[in-house]
Amino acid sequence: MDTKQDISKRAYDQLHTDAEKIRQLIQVQMDNLTMPQCPLYEEVLDTQMFGLSREVEFAIKLDLVDEQEGRQLLDNLEQELSKLHDAHTKTSLK
Amino acid sequence: MDTKQDISKRAYDQLHTDAEKIRQLIQVQMDNLTMPQCPLYEEVLDTQMFGLSREVEFAIKLDLVDEQEGRQLLDNLEQELSKLHDAHTKTSLK
Repeated sequence: MDTKQDISKRAYDQLHTDAEKIRQLIQVQMDNLTMPQCPLYEEVLDTQMFGLSREVEFAIKLDLVDEQEGRQLLDNLEQELSKLHDAHTKTSLK
Repeated sequence: MDTKQDISKRAYDQLHTDAEKIRQLIQVQMDNLTMPQCPLYEEVLDTQMFGLSREVEFAIKLDLVDEQEGRQLLDNLEQELSKLHDAHTKTSLK
């Protein structure tokens, strides 16, 4: 029988997995599909971040994930994607 | 201490609450803001359904919500919104 702690751990793991998927998707998109200046990039990013923020809020409401840690996960991902984006833009401009 | 059953019940309740919020949002939007033919309507609807489907998938992966019941919740909401939309379109055309 799962305890609350087990479920909470799975919630954190799942959120990190989903954040990592977004990171990979954005990386692939920048490497192959479109320029980061393309509106499609922004749209995919916004949609994916929205989806993840819904998961985080849901986990917080179920008291499985700490509110601050959940927001931190989203902030960290946004910062990493922003760095990826900047690095790619600089390379493209060379 | 919450049992898995408690958390699972909260997960179902939260998903139903969030589905109800989407229903109300769409109702308000149809009553006040835009015509249902407007692309904005489709966009809001798609975004909201995407957010809810992410929550449902998350709850299923955590084994809190039954896969079939989760999909049923999304299907039911889509059908209800579609009926709302049809009813509103017919009224507007009168």
